[in-house]
Amino acid sequence: MKTLKVALLQNSYNIYINSWNLNHSINQLKKFLQEDKIYIITNTTVKKLYQKKINKAFPKHIKTIWISIPDGERYKNLSTIEKIHTRLSQKNANRKSALLALGGGVVGDIAGFVASTYMRGIKYFQMPTTLLSQVDSAVGGKTGVDLKTGKNLVGAFYQPKAVFIHTDFLKTLPKREIKCGLAEVIKYGIIWDKAFFDYLGRNSKQIKQLNPTALGKIIYRSCEIKAQVVKRDEKENSFRAILNYGHTLGHAIEALTGFKKIQHGEAVAMGMVFAADLSYLSGHSKVNYSGQISTMLKMFGLPHRYPIYSSSAYKQAILRDKKASGKIIKFILIQKIGKVSVIPLDIKNIVKWLYASISGSII
Amino acid sequence: MKTLKVALLQNSYNIYINSWNLNHSINQLKKFLQEDKIYIITNTTVKKLYQKKINKAFPKHIKTIWISIPDGERYKNLSTIEKIHTRLSQKNANRKSALLALGGGVVGDIAGFVASTYMRGIKYFQMPTTLLSQVDSAVGGKTGVDLKTGKNLVGAFYQPKAVFIHTDFLKTLPKREIKCGLAEVIKYGIIWDKAFFDYLGRNSKQIKQLNPTALGKIIYRSCEIKAQVVKRDEKENSFRAILNYGHTLGHAIEALTGFKKIQHGEAVAMGMVFAADLSYLSGHSKVNYSGQISTMLKMFGLPHRYPIYSSSAYKQAILRDKKASGKIIKFILIQKIGKVSVIPLDIKNIVKWLYASISGSII
Repeated sequence: MKTLKVALLQNSYNIYINSWNLNHSINQLKKFLQEDKIYIITNTTVKKLYQKKINKAFPKHIKTIWISIPDGERYKNLSTIEKIHTRLSQKNANRKSALLALGGGVVGDIAGFVASTYMRGIKYFQMPTTLLSQVDSAVGGKTGVDLKTGKNLVGAFYQPKAVFIHTDFLKTLPKREIKCGLAEVIKYGIIWDKAFFDYLGRNSKQIKQLNPTALGKIIYRSCEIKAQVVKRDEKENSFRAILNYGHTLGHAIEALTGFKKIQHGEAVAMGMVFAADLSYLSGHSKVNYSGQISTMLKMFGLPHRYPIYSSSAYKQAILRDKKASGKIIKFILIQKIGKVSVIPLDIKNIVKWLYASISGSII
Repeated sequence: MKTLKVALLQNSYNIYINSWNLNHSINQLKKFLQEDKIYIITNTTVKKLYQKKINKAFPKHIKTIWISIPDGERYKNLSTIEKIHTRLSQKNANRKSALLALGGGVVGDIAGFVASTYMRGIKYFQMPTTLLSQVDSAVGGKTGVDLKTGKNLVGAFYQPKAVFIHTDFLKTLPKREIKCGLAEVIKYGIIWDKAFFDYLGRNSKQIKQLNPTALGKIIYRSCEIKAQVVKRDEKENSFRAILNYGHTLGHAIEALTGFKKIQHGEAVAMGMVFAADLSYLSGHSKVNYSGQISTMLKMFGLPHRYPIYSSSAYKQAILRDKKASGKIIKFILIQKIGKVSVIPLDIKNIVKWLYASISGSII
């Protein structure tokens, strides 16, 4: 049982990490409730697996009201937001009501955005059920949905009252999704902590086998790093952008492949390799770390080569990045494992170096 | 030319009030711009009337990008929000971009909500073109849209960088809309300032003739009162609710009449009379002020009798109020002209007294 405090200027909160102590989580959650009910936002898959167990963990006098959405990133849009809002209103949710986001990143992003906008803001909790959401999206208060023109273009910064992480949820998670979470875990090593990066390399076997001690450690350290970054720059004025290491190309690849074939963590894996190449090509790093990063990704069964699209397609997709301003993108470049910086780069150069990197002429 | 500061904890801003000094406004606005363009959100009616004039007021090197929506409250929904977001994204708006809300309350609420959620928040300005928005919705940072189940159920608190009020916009405004704005002006007298209430009674002729001095005075004082209230409770934890005097029944009437036949200001006018009756019936006020309020409303051509619906219809509509919690509604009651309080009332009693009031048995 571990507790981690996310210390923010106004809205500090705790992350509780353990394998399966649901009662402890509900006891913490109860402290915030202002009425004898909780609205649980989830998807159909998670509901089927966990509805009974969760209902049982709540004391009898607290009513659980379930609102479930179809499973998949393609439902992460404003139409789903409107449906949930309407259900909340029909089920008499008011300003004192509270939501529990039970699911992966999509559920968390959607439920958080609903909470931030229902009656201009009600309280909510995160209970992430995937590794990706446990180490990344459930922490930090970024909420939102996609537009057809790009990911996460609509949203809000809105902090939960608490985050409850139970590693036993991961037992029912497909292998591929575990890998996707590990891509973000590896990212934390790259941007912040070489010792953690090395730990991942040394313990890949235990991690892949979902050893509880190893899982607990990597989730705790990932959340801790994210919390430290978010604390310094909650609303991403600049510094927080380092969490987007690998994400600029990652998002572009997701958009180009229609958010279907390639999952977020896989796209980020590819993006992390490119960001290392780009760091080297642009003279930011003296050594090219893409080989070391590729080796780590391969160890966890993650992809490290990116698909080939025309330069104009890549250019357009990259320019949709939220860190773009005109033709300039704030790119996260690596100096060495454990240290990255936000560097403005011209889109022309990015695309030029992308092609140099794809052709392998620099490796 | 008058300037009023809205002093908030984090996001203070100025309201500039004058008849038609657009250049002054644009000069103020320019100080906040981080790029040589501004996205102007408006409706088709306002665009037709003012596009040329506004474009001319901007210096040539600043590009104005117009995004216009159909005119009417029925377009104040998430589907319109999505359309504007998509247009912004297609037109390369980024985190440094700024929006100008040019229009009445609907445009302001929509543009403000878009600004609060586009890429998790970009800056925006209000240039309200109706009396209602100049004295009410453009000030205070409430943004949002309606659901089919109720008004303003989805939204955010999000402050503009500045508000530019030009009374000459009112010259092209239909008489009925002027009246609707005056309902809110009268409300400020009732909730805060008896001398202002009396001023309105003494100067009804000049006000109705849109005399610039009288208009300037009532707009300034209305904004000032609203700013004072908002300063004390920006996110409506409790005190700010007094601005909703007349609005609980008002919103219910709007919902029951399908947001069409009766305009917001008219519904609020009816609601203000009922709130006075209710204050008297519930023992909160020793005198029944509904007569005095009705007289003032009639003077400005505003309605003061409310339509008859079944008690179950009224009950359901009132319970959708954001100030409802279970069967208890936080109702704004009047103690005397210039002083109101937030009082929790049981829905049963509200409906009972509503019928006593409709039947006239208490007047």
